[in-house]
Amino acid sequence: MNFLGACMVSTGILAAASASAQQAEPLVISEQGSFFAGGSVVTTPGTYNNNVPTAEGQSIHGDHLYTFYQIPQDAKSTPIVMLHGHMQSARSWETTPDGREGFQTLFLRKGYPVYLVDQPRRGRAGNSLEAATIEPTPLDQLFFDQFRLGIWPDYFEGVQVDQSPETLEQFLRWITPNTGPYDPNVVADAMSALVDRTGPAILFTHSQGGGPGWLTAIRNEDIRAIVSYEPGSGFVFPEGEVPETMPSAGGPLAAEAVPLEDFQKLTRFPILIYYGDNFPTEPTERRGEDIWRVRLDMAKLWVEAVNRHGGDVTLVHLPEIGITGNTHFPFSDLNNVEIADHTAQFLAEKGLD
Amino acid sequence: MNFLGACMVSTGILAAASASAQQAEPLVISEQGSFFAGGSVVTTPGTYNNNVPTAEGQSIHGDHLYTFYQIPQDAKSTPIVMLHGHMQSARSWETTPDGREGFQTLFLRKGYPVYLVDQPRRGRAGNSLEAATIEPTPLDQLFFDQFRLGIWPDYFEGVQVDQSPETLEQFLRWITPNTGPYDPNVVADAMSALVDRTGPAILFTHSQGGGPGWLTAIRNEDIRAIVSYEPGSGFVFPEGEVPETMPSAGGPLAAEAVPLEDFQKLTRFPILIYYGDNFPTEPTERRGEDIWRVRLDMAKLWVEAVNRHGGDVTLVHLPEIGITGNTHFPFSDLNNVEIADHTAQFLAEKGLD
Repeated sequence: MNFLGACMVSTGILAAASASAQQAEPLVISEQGSFFAGGSVVTTPGTYNNNVPTAEGQSIHGDHLYTFYQIPQDAKSTPIVMLHGHMQSARSWETTPDGREGFQTLFLRKGYPVYLVDQPRRGRAGNSLEAATIEPTPLDQLFFDQFRLGIWPDYFEGVQVDQSPETLEQFLRWITPNTGPYDPNVVADAMSALVDRTGPAILFTHSQGGGPGWLTAIRNEDIRAIVSYEPGSGFVFPEGEVPETMPSAGGPLAAEAVPLEDFQKLTRFPILIYYGDNFPTEPTERRGEDIWRVRLDMAKLWVEAVNRHGGDVTLVHLPEIGITGNTHFPFSDLNNVEIADHTAQFLAEKGLD
Repeated sequence: MNFLGACMVSTGILAAASASAQQAEPLVISEQGSFFAGGSVVTTPGTYNNNVPTAEGQSIHGDHLYTFYQIPQDAKSTPIVMLHGHMQSARSWETTPDGREGFQTLFLRKGYPVYLVDQPRRGRAGNSLEAATIEPTPLDQLFFDQFRLGIWPDYFEGVQVDQSPETLEQFLRWITPNTGPYDPNVVADAMSALVDRTGPAILFTHSQGGGPGWLTAIRNEDIRAIVSYEPGSGFVFPEGEVPETMPSAGGPLAAEAVPLEDFQKLTRFPILIYYGDNFPTEPTERRGEDIWRVRLDMAKLWVEAVNRHGGDVTLVHLPEIGITGNTHFPFSDLNNVEIADHTAQFLAEKGLD
């Protein structure tokens, strides 16, 4: 059965009925909890004085990730680890902005153990080993555009987003800042330590999380698949095969070089990449959309490169399979049950159910 | 049946057997998810330019709290909202440092809906409306002392903590910084907004969370009980009844004044306060312990004040009822099942089960 073809028969009505039925059933969780993975320790020279403490002789733990996991009863054997994007946290995968079940709970219902990550220097993994200054920065309108809800203050016609003010407010509060400099290698080191603990795992990444996702798979042989929702940066190519930097109305998008032997590690497992709707086909001065034009172009080159080296990457541009209106957050859009079903079918076809 | 007397017959052996049996049973969750409560919006004057965005005309959402909630099947009617302490997050209430179930899951098993909070400017509620600079600060040894695990590098004899390096490492990674200035009123505003959404609620607070806990109950009539584990600051007294500042080897502890009519709002519901073990009875130069001597003294004055005004506060100094070895984190200590049972019995006696 063809994966993409099969998905095209999925309808919004079926998806909605499915969601309603799912929400009526209780979740049966055999185990849940949280822990930290990876990270480093830095110790200041000197002798600690218990009664008059200074930095001398004291240590700090930082640069770890935090994960909250749930294992459903009669779980499938391969867990899903979900890594958020830029200025987001594990929150991205929980309840949708309009209050429905997000991918955390939807994939628990499908029988997968689910691990949600706050990456190092974000959220509950906030202890950074490098300093940061956080300035309150008004970005709501930029994010509205850049996350492709519409062109502020107007929503795109047919966008898969509830347009009530309450939903938009919840969505905008998902934003949470870096507590240290963003470093994809720090993230990938911690992610690899997490996979050492979970064992063989499926990785879901979002947006900026795409880059550290590839770097995790280069570090760790136990990645069994990656599903990347709108990867936005960190496209790695073999040295000598790096495409030219792509200009856009939102700034240039540069690819990154890795040694060939590292790149080839991305050919060991299946990869699925999604992009949503409202991508311009020609350059435009509309910044919020134009940044995605070049990311889709870059992703297509990346898919060609991985597959040329023997890999198994599928890129799904959702409107091309009849699924329209998706924003930069397809896993929490109004049709997220349909997206979850589409992803689950991919995992099943790859023997990961 | 007397509440304190009944708890004294609880034994460690029974508690351990109970924990083991509990962990074998799956959790049945009727609903789970997350949302933000409270907070503000600040908008920069001017007109937003979609194509060349600056701060002009843009807004920022911040100073909200984040909560993750779970409602067990056949749940009790009154949920428990758990608020963490200084440099902590909702993580405090999840898995213990040595990998056992924390209060999140233990109280779900007792049938309570449980809401875990990341307070404003912390964890996943990181977007602050005021700036902050975060410097990596080595504090592990100070926290070891101050959280009363022992006197670094030695653990207290009989302390209720697993002493493996792995457990200590997990515990020290719980630390996560403020992403904006700490402001108990910002926390209490958001907590009150959360209780507006949950309806009548029981509040559990830890350490620094004690202060905003009282302030929440002053703001919101729907607090049905507060259980405060080692409240560490923010003791509020009626104007004119504020005790003198108490010096300690770790600095002075000052009480705070509130109008009498606000203070009287703390007499409307039952309150239970816990303190653990290894409190000095006389002033000592040992900083990590001496700060707790004055906090226990202040708490005793606070209990007298609330009860003098018609309140219902019980202070349990655990060693006095035969429960020994507890640190500043009784809800995650080795005997946390016994502590949970003790708290649950209090709630039952107050008709909150």
